[in-house]
Amino acid sequence: MWTEANNKLSAKLTFKDFPEAFTFMTEVAFLAEKMNHHPNWSNVWNKVEIHLNTHDAGDTVTEKDRKLGAAIEKVYQKYKV
Amino acid sequence: MWTEANNKLSAKLTFKDFPEAFTFMTEVAFLAEKMNHHPNWSNVWNKVEIHLNTHDAGDTVTEKDRKLGAAIEKVYQKYKV
Amino acid sequence: MWTEANNKLSAKLTFKDFPEAFTFMTEVAFLAEKMNHHPNWSNVWNKVEIHLNTHDAGDTVTEKDRKLGAAIEKVYQKYKV
Amino acid sequence: MWTEANNKLSAKLTFKDFPEAFTFMTEVAFLAEKMNHHPNWSNVWNKVEIHLNTHDAGDTVTEKDRKLGAAIEKVYQKYKV
Repeated sequence: MWTEANNKLSAKLTFKDFPEAFTFMTEVAFLAEKMNHHPNWSNVWNKVEIHLNTHDAGDTVTEKDRKLGAAIEKVYQKYKV
Repeated sequence: MWTEANNKLSAKLTFKDFPEAFTFMTEVAFLAEKMNHHPNWSNVWNKVEIHLNTHDAGDTVTEKDRKLGAAIEKVYQKYKV
Repeated sequence: MWTEANNKLSAKLTFKDFPEAFTFMTEVAFLAEKMNHHPNWSNVWNKVEIHLNTHDAGDTVTEKDRKLGAAIEKVYQKYKV
Repeated sequence: MWTEANNKLSAKLTFKDFPEAFTFMTEVAFLAEKMNHHPNWSNVWNKVEIHLNTHDAGDTVTEKDRKLGAAIEKVYQKYKV
């Protein structure tokens, strides 16, 4: 699900519709807040694009990003067709 | 998942933790708003209890409740272990 | 906003509509998760009822409830007409 | 709050923290879904950036965007310091 390029761990996800995409974002929001590590993400209707890197490490990909990325991937399993 | 008694369609659901329970509620909230038919529901940590009936039909169970109930059940499939 | 009775700190709140009530609940959900202290709460359309006590203290009202209660009250200021 | 350029109605908003930013997004999500008109938006921690235009009108700014923009602005009043 994740690709790494330009010092970012990135994923482009597609959902059934907007409520489902936003619901996915809600569970991720709880995760991000708990880890105190927040994604740079965007949404338009049923698409969600996520970029992870660590500001405090010069905007590079660190263990914090891999950990959050793995947790997000686990949430995403619920939404896979 | 649903039981019908005392003029209510009811379900008691359990989730992994609070964020998952609240995330489930978020997708249901979008459904309820779209159908303009809202549950009487409660939550404590990982438990969600839902009661459906139709105020405009003298607080009895109507087709609106069955339709919302079926849609909620479909959302809940994501969270089943 | 809060009343204390039967070993619970309780509030009954009214909002403009369901989206506003659920949005209020969302910010409270983040607070509750951060404090690792969760309300027993219910909602129907634009009404939210909250009950706070501490399970680990024999279901009595403790400092944890007063702290969460104060934080919820601060969130609620946004929604006051 | 809004600026219009490059066929988009845009706003850059700042909140107290991530939970507040995401809570704002939640109320906007309900609005967008109700209007069946969805923003192209991004978030990182306490920042939310919103871009509105109408895909069915060749990605130009239409009345739908102005209407959604006005509704979002009303929600945002709650969060202004």
